[in-house]
Amino acid sequence: MHILITGAAGMIGRKLTARLLADGALNGRPIDRLTLVDIDAPQRPDGLAARTDCLATDLADAAAATAAIAGKPEVIFHLAGVVSGEAELDFEKGMRVNLDGSRALLEAIRAVGGNYRPKFIFASSIAVFGAPFPEAIPDDFHTTPLTSYGTEKAIVELLLADYTRRGLLDGVGIRLPTINVRPGHPNKAASGFFSSIIREPLNGEEALLPVDDTVLHWHASPRAAVGFLIHAAGLDDEKIGPRVNITMPGVACTVAEQIAALRRIAGDTVAARIRRAPDPLVLRIVAGWPKRFDPRRALALGFRAEASFDDIIRVHIADELGGRIAS
Amino acid sequence: MHILITGAAGMIGRKLTARLLADGALNGRPIDRLTLVDIDAPQRPDGLAARTDCLATDLADAAAATAAIAGKPEVIFHLAGVVSGEAELDFEKGMRVNLDGSRALLEAIRAVGGNYRPKFIFASSIAVFGAPFPEAIPDDFHTTPLTSYGTEKAIVELLLADYTRRGLLDGVGIRLPTINVRPGHPNKAASGFFSSIIREPLNGEEALLPVDDTVLHWHASPRAAVGFLIHAAGLDDEKIGPRVNITMPGVACTVAEQIAALRRIAGDTVAARIRRAPDPLVLRIVAGWPKRFDPRRALALGFRAEASFDDIIRVHIADELGGRIAS
Repeated sequence: MHILITGAAGMIGRKLTARLLADGALNGRPIDRLTLVDIDAPQRPDGLAARTDCLATDLADAAAATAAIAGKPEVIFHLAGVVSGEAELDFEKGMRVNLDGSRALLEAIRAVGGNYRPKFIFASSIAVFGAPFPEAIPDDFHTTPLTSYGTEKAIVELLLADYTRRGLLDGVGIRLPTINVRPGHPNKAASGFFSSIIREPLNGEEALLPVDDTVLHWHASPRAAVGFLIHAAGLDDEKIGPRVNITMPGVACTVAEQIAALRRIAGDTVAARIRRAPDPLVLRIVAGWPKRFDPRRALALGFRAEASFDDIIRVHIADELGGRIAS
Repeated sequence: MHILITGAAGMIGRKLTARLLADGALNGRPIDRLTLVDIDAPQRPDGLAARTDCLATDLADAAAATAAIAGKPEVIFHLAGVVSGEAELDFEKGMRVNLDGSRALLEAIRAVGGNYRPKFIFASSIAVFGAPFPEAIPDDFHTTPLTSYGTEKAIVELLLADYTRRGLLDGVGIRLPTINVRPGHPNKAASGFFSSIIREPLNGEEALLPVDDTVLHWHASPRAAVGFLIHAAGLDDEKIGPRVNITMPGVACTVAEQIAALRRIAGDTVAARIRRAPDPLVLRIVAGWPKRFDPRRALALGFRAEASFDDIIRVHIADELGGRIAS
């Protein structure tokens, strides 16, 4: 089994790589080759039996996209992209990387022809949706994004479905919830506070909360996201049918419920490190985001997220903090 | 008022041009300049006071797209495209013309910059939807096309909404029903029979019916389609909001109801010219098409189609047959 991961140097890419190497197999077949690409060459992972190529690749360059799939990987995890904030600030870069790069990769696959028909897992996002919303967003709700990032994801979803319908590949687009708790340092993304109000207090640091604690949102852990990707790779395409883009399950909870979960797990001292610092701009941005889904198709297809925000915090403590909390 | 029409040589393009010249004005302002473009230069319309440029333009060529908007038209009707059957048979051509051509036009507008913000009316299609469907498709139903043509239209809708959100233009995408009765000769489109079972009998000729007469579909006349385009050009963008792509109203009726209307209007002799010739391929294709919509937004915004299929036939007799029927 030869697997290609684009965006392999990103947070999800590194966790996916580690999980695949730990498993040693995908869909019951041993992994004997990995191709890891990103805009800068990904680091070579440790403890690797499989042959691994780490490439610096700008997928929007057709020749680079062709090179990335030269080894005819049987499974492709397409995670590469610039994030929401960057795609909004730099329209041309977002369109080039998120749309043209994805299309170049699809076209490179089409150009191979013959019997080559890889499994292609695309990391889409709930950003394909834009307000106003019903109380729980159903699987057949329209995609009317309110960011260029969401627009680019929604377009690639459409291309993926058409390339799949034409028999050029077996695509699955998985619409990831907001990933929480993101490891690492605080960033300037408007969604960053969802993670930082958990991550920083557990680290003994103060975190700022820019929104009311009534704000409701849709979360899943990095571990769950990796699980979605691997589960998608094993799905029978006949079970999926032509609607290949699927909203993933998650945990719907308010900021107040996030904080209550933190208090249950780590105590009052830790939870007290969250300081309210209302920011009208962040509040306005967040108001346009999806709050809660009714992801029936994903559940029927066997995708599983955490059952509660407590579980999301426990995953973070186990996977990032070695089980320890700064008290 | 300077107006650009792409696809101006097509059936709707010619009717739109004629209507604009007959009106002499759009949104209450006199039309003093027309730019008509198509892959082959459109014919110069008769009886024209306004300055008119007729250009042979391949919009997918960035320089040609730039030339098409060099005169900074205040209203753009973007009708150009290859039809559904051709886009399905020739994937590269469909993507190039329907997607890349539309994007090049949007990019040419973005490149002008400054205060240039034209009204941009995009002729989309109910082909953005794919089965299975609820009994009446609501305005918030997802777009999961089952053709490359529908995929291309859905992608341009997303781009149009994002360019509008970014203030680069004032876009409106109107999802046209199946246009009935199409004038001219029978074509090989799978949907051709919807028109030919009306057009040929009224012309004294036999028509073949490849499907059961229980088939339900969504129709509007060419005159109504032109009316949608002109109404869209006059809509206040604040009334439309960020969801700029709108399913147009139409007449939902079965083939049996089409035939009954023909009989009411033209008599038994004319209706008897329809011969049943079941074609399993056509039946299978048509089974994936939308049947009926609940187009509340369009109705609330003042878009109007015919009230009955009888009216659709009467429009054809008035506009194409000079009011006469071959008996």
